[in-house]
Amino acid sequence: MSTYTIPKTMKAAVVPATGADLQITEVPVPQPETLKPGECLVKLDCTGVCHTDLHAAKGDWPIPAKTPLIGGHEGVGVVVAIGAHTQDSPIKLGDRVGIKWLADSCLDCELCRKGLEQSCLKGRYSGFTVDGTFSQYVLSYVRHVTPIPENLGSAEAASILCAGVTVYRAIKYSNARIGDWIVLPGAGGGLGHLAVQYAVAMGLRVLAVDTGADKRDLVLKLGAEKWIDFRETKDLVKDIQAATDGLGPHAAVITAATSTAYEQAVDYLRPGGTIMVVGLPARASLNADIFFTVTKSISILGSYVGNRQDAREALDIAARGKVKCTFQLKPLSALEETYHALEAGTVAGRIVLDMQ
Amino acid sequence: MSTYTIPKTMKAAVVPATGADLQITEVPVPQPETLKPGECLVKLDCTGVCHTDLHAAKGDWPIPAKTPLIGGHEGVGVVVAIGAHTQDSPIKLGDRVGIKWLADSCLDCELCRKGLEQSCLKGRYSGFTVDGTFSQYVLSYVRHVTPIPENLGSAEAASILCAGVTVYRAIKYSNARIGDWIVLPGAGGGLGHLAVQYAVAMGLRVLAVDTGADKRDLVLKLGAEKWIDFRETKDLVKDIQAATDGLGPHAAVITAATSTAYEQAVDYLRPGGTIMVVGLPARASLNADIFFTVTKSISILGSYVGNRQDAREALDIAARGKVKCTFQLKPLSALEETYHALEAGTVAGRIVLDMQ
Amino acid sequence: MSTYTIPKTMKAAVVPATGADLQITEVPVPQPETLKPGECLVKLDCTGVCHTDLHAAKGDWPIPAKTPLIGGHEGVGVVVAIGAHTQDSPIKLGDRVGIKWLADSCLDCELCRKGLEQSCLKGRYSGFTVDGTFSQYVLSYVRHVTPIPENLGSAEAASILCAGVTVYRAIKYSNARIGDWIVLPGAGGGLGHLAVQYAVAMGLRVLAVDTGADKRDLVLKLGAEKWIDFRETKDLVKDIQAATDGLGPHAAVITAATSTAYEQAVDYLRPGGTIMVVGLPARASLNADIFFTVTKSISILGSYVGNRQDAREALDIAARGKVKCTFQLKPLSALEETYHALEAGTVAGRIVLDMQ
Amino acid sequence: MSTYTIPKTMKAAVVPATGADLQITEVPVPQPETLKPGECLVKLDCTGVCHTDLHAAKGDWPIPAKTPLIGGHEGVGVVVAIGAHTQDSPIKLGDRVGIKWLADSCLDCELCRKGLEQSCLKGRYSGFTVDGTFSQYVLSYVRHVTPIPENLGSAEAASILCAGVTVYRAIKYSNARIGDWIVLPGAGGGLGHLAVQYAVAMGLRVLAVDTGADKRDLVLKLGAEKWIDFRETKDLVKDIQAATDGLGPHAAVITAATSTAYEQAVDYLRPGGTIMVVGLPARASLNADIFFTVTKSISILGSYVGNRQDAREALDIAARGKVKCTFQLKPLSALEETYHALEAGTVAGRIVLDMQ
Repeated sequence: MSTYTIPKTMKAAVVPATGADLQITEVPVPQPETLKPGECLVKLDCTGVCHTDLHAAKGDWPIPAKTPLIGGHEGVGVVVAIGAHTQDSPIKLGDRVGIKWLADSCLDCELCRKGLEQSCLKGRYSGFTVDGTFSQYVLSYVRHVTPIPENLGSAEAASILCAGVTVYRAIKYSNARIGDWIVLPGAGGGLGHLAVQYAVAMGLRVLAVDTGADKRDLVLKLGAEKWIDFRETKDLVKDIQAATDGLGPHAAVITAATSTAYEQAVDYLRPGGTIMVVGLPARASLNADIFFTVTKSISILGSYVGNRQDAREALDIAARGKVKCTFQLKPLSALEETYHALEAGTVAGRIVLDMQ
Repeated sequence: MSTYTIPKTMKAAVVPATGADLQITEVPVPQPETLKPGECLVKLDCTGVCHTDLHAAKGDWPIPAKTPLIGGHEGVGVVVAIGAHTQDSPIKLGDRVGIKWLADSCLDCELCRKGLEQSCLKGRYSGFTVDGTFSQYVLSYVRHVTPIPENLGSAEAASILCAGVTVYRAIKYSNARIGDWIVLPGAGGGLGHLAVQYAVAMGLRVLAVDTGADKRDLVLKLGAEKWIDFRETKDLVKDIQAATDGLGPHAAVITAATSTAYEQAVDYLRPGGTIMVVGLPARASLNADIFFTVTKSISILGSYVGNRQDAREALDIAARGKVKCTFQLKPLSALEETYHALEAGTVAGRIVLDMQ
Repeated sequence: MSTYTIPKTMKAAVVPATGADLQITEVPVPQPETLKPGECLVKLDCTGVCHTDLHAAKGDWPIPAKTPLIGGHEGVGVVVAIGAHTQDSPIKLGDRVGIKWLADSCLDCELCRKGLEQSCLKGRYSGFTVDGTFSQYVLSYVRHVTPIPENLGSAEAASILCAGVTVYRAIKYSNARIGDWIVLPGAGGGLGHLAVQYAVAMGLRVLAVDTGADKRDLVLKLGAEKWIDFRETKDLVKDIQAATDGLGPHAAVITAATSTAYEQAVDYLRPGGTIMVVGLPARASLNADIFFTVTKSISILGSYVGNRQDAREALDIAARGKVKCTFQLKPLSALEETYHALEAGTVAGRIVLDMQ
Repeated sequence: MSTYTIPKTMKAAVVPATGADLQITEVPVPQPETLKPGECLVKLDCTGVCHTDLHAAKGDWPIPAKTPLIGGHEGVGVVVAIGAHTQDSPIKLGDRVGIKWLADSCLDCELCRKGLEQSCLKGRYSGFTVDGTFSQYVLSYVRHVTPIPENLGSAEAASILCAGVTVYRAIKYSNARIGDWIVLPGAGGGLGHLAVQYAVAMGLRVLAVDTGADKRDLVLKLGAEKWIDFRETKDLVKDIQAATDGLGPHAAVITAATSTAYEQAVDYLRPGGTIMVVGLPARASLNADIFFTVTKSISILGSYVGNRQDAREALDIAARGKVKCTFQLKPLSALEETYHALEAGTVAGRIVLDMQ
């Protein structure tokens, strides 16, 4: 079902095989008449680039991505077709929607019934098990695309769909409540600078940890109450505790991929504190000390992107101006250099690709 | 304040220095007139022996015990003296009370105000930072001793005060609700066989994991629904999942001291599942895989004995006949051989020492 | 889509207009080829009768039912057709399923996303806004019919679908945990006797309140720990508190339709206690005293049937033999006399109608 | 124990008998040597006046106050004596502390162990069951006085101790989370204007309901997002829903003493919404409709002032400048006219009495 003119081919960034180089090439556009019930076609305005896309392309996670693969899972665009016989579609042609990591889930299994859609055993993942948003059009699913609030620009919304939702949900489920201290290692990074803003919006007190004057200035401007430069401290654990009433923070959101971040967090957290585990390293273990995890009653909670409700909430907060993503807009052709920059750790904020 | 005749000396098992051998010897009894406000003297009927006592004696934990040390923290006895000027004492002379691991906490700090008394920074620990129950009398604290229900024998109550409370709280906070599957590795052991009973009493479905026909028979008699002998299975993770609807259990209580138990639990748990961390090994790390902790939304919760309310509840459930501890009653002189048996892993159920 | 032979007409109990008499008559069967995507046709084995059906027929609720109306919302039967183009149906032809009060919800709105499907603004209600189960076939919705566990008979399952789920969810959300006291006024009735069993299965201590030796014997056999005959007590509030440690119960499930039940509950509950509001009277107010609701920190929680997950759980517990419904099996022609008996309050247990 | 010079008499406002007129008179000061263990003497800087004081003086609540009575429970002052033999006092001479409604609780009963100190059966209430703060000195209890943060003035802190804590706890337990709508009837009043600020600090969206341009300007300045003048609306329920996405707010905090406020709240709240009951009228019932309380799954939660932790949090948030109380400072002699003004409903913000 479509009233739009859909071209036969489109530009896309394709990974032909696991670990192979990206190719910007022309590929077929899924045509409206081939859509199954529940599927839709979205013409993309733009799409964010996430570290996860790099893992998918390199194939260094314990689970392999499909190949050939079109990556990307922070896309924003307009619905231009909906599969025939789609029942009770919550979206209609012309709606502006987001494509997030969780492209689809069954909404029927125990996990979905309990709201843990992102761990659905039949889940489909954009740019991983199904083609993603590094292309001008993408096939997606009416029940899982996310309506974008009217007063939020597409490029502004893109990174909220993954980076934003991920830190938003992690903070929301961290048990930290108004007036509690939360420590954000990597606060000046892509996820971190969004986390600072969501935490502040909930009334949490933010201790930002990162390095360099630029990041310090950014996070303090965004509302962090205290700052520690991890390159300048001699004893990070002691300094974090000193900055947070001596007892340590109530919560930590760990986006880093290293094991040591967990060991430190068990040491510096206040008894009863919570570690939110959100980073997805290739292969690494939580090296938390058991003795202190027990005697300090520490909670270590895996938090995986977010469900449909989390996505709505994260976008709504951004649309009301409480959270703004720092990003640079680039063409699709800049994707490869963006991957190199991500590996080198030189990306400030997020990169968003203009798809039109 | 006392109407009892208190002897000047008593028999006690003393560890003279870290790692030194136990000595059964005569030591002074704290005299009623020397008690400070809030302190009390308890004449012990009996006391359980816990693996923690062995750690305290050997000094192999990251935090050292006091020396010389009288260990023990599963004591039951009668209040024979209360310090002068004690305000609003919740107990009176003649009351039968339990001495648990948490001998005292301030009831005033943030942790105590929030109910996390056991992690109070001013906490006192029986048989660790203050003398414990391997003696005929023990000095304790009116606000933290636990009244023993009338219809529960002292020897029956002893092991509930630590082993029982520990597994009870862990199960209670495991997020598992009626009809959910809980896996209990070590189900036939001292903590495990109590855990089976508490879990069954809450309406959970128990998958018991341990080894040997005796333990199998015991746990099935106590209400476990399924059994896996870890020495007979070729793939523990697969077998646990197959036994629990294919999806895996909703929760696991890990009393084991090894790191691998955590790695396996992340693998076999259902997405959204919870690992309760209760064992206190000398030095070991939680080697949980980060990738699957996140993508399966696993919660790993440190659970440290219990607070005053947990202790009351665990005892009350036992007093109503829902949970029975399997134990052997021995004299205080059997403490050393009990330690050897604990190290060798040959203790079936719990050992309780008769102190009178 | 169907491989079954579907007749053109069927027997049904029809309410032609609000308040009019029931007519057992022949009506058309929805034919497979007319089903929309997502719809299914169920051939009913049996169906329970609920007080709600009487409200629907009489039209005495603040919201009117459709007319003409086929009532009924505790149906069990076999799926004999599924609408063409149905996407990802969780059920297939031949599955035995239940039809509950909530026939369908959108699974997309904020309420559905948060698991509160039963309050979905687009919700469809069996035997109220859509035709229900007092007929040999019923049109329903693949995403909301409930699979019936293999080892649970259809007649045994019927009343679990509404009466069972309603009390199960109420108890589950009542904040009462193992060892807590729950009071169940009307414990010997249709909902009450199921509530006793679910509460016992969760490890709660049940104080049953009702009248007559038959009901007393029934609830004590089902596991209630104490009993009060409300016709024999001189001071119900005082007697309830005396039976529950003097402090009063932790929770009460109020299935009664009268305002006074709420006033009493605020009086007898323990501070911090919870009242579950589940009855749906024609028009009545919660006459809870504000002063004591505040100073006793009482929670009063509206609980409306259950969502898909609650229905699965309630059935699973019954299938494992923990909960058994007392019922009489009657023919459809007995529906009118059943309504009279419900109005007179003379129904013991539940009535289930045999539809084949 | 005191190093201060304590006079023999002091000025106090005394209610000689229930319903009698206030008398400002000289009464004896409790002398340091008469204090029991756990008691302390506080020299008051100032004290707020609360509607509850008026109920206590008039005796129109279902439970009578002591007589003769010195009212008052929002006092701030300096600890000038501590009872001999007090064990582990969390405060010392010279500390500035607050006296709140809950003067003392046992910290030992089930309610205290679970954190519901304010409903302790042995609770003592300032200006109700024990003399309060309408005097120059007051006897209080070391374990329940609240330390005042250094950078918060005494007059600024006074009303936080009751009005502030009450609305803070109500909002904190309202289930409303960041981005949710909360409606505050009476938003421009003493409790209301504090509620607006606490709600905003937690990231809630505030719909303020009250009347008059002054109140409108105040609440909008304090961060309310929308405003409804209840005298100007023709359909309050409809207007509240229209202002909150059409679905209605997620929570309401009802400080009003009237029954109709509850009936309206059930009507305008979003399904799944929560009503916080905090007002303490002389005698009134919650007239909530049962049918809609159930079908909308409404939670009605009694919330009674706050416990020690709530008091610390409410003060801490105020000390960090997030919440400011609008008040007028008056002499003790203005107490009677303040009562008249409270009855007439003409007090803007709060009245604080200067006691030195």
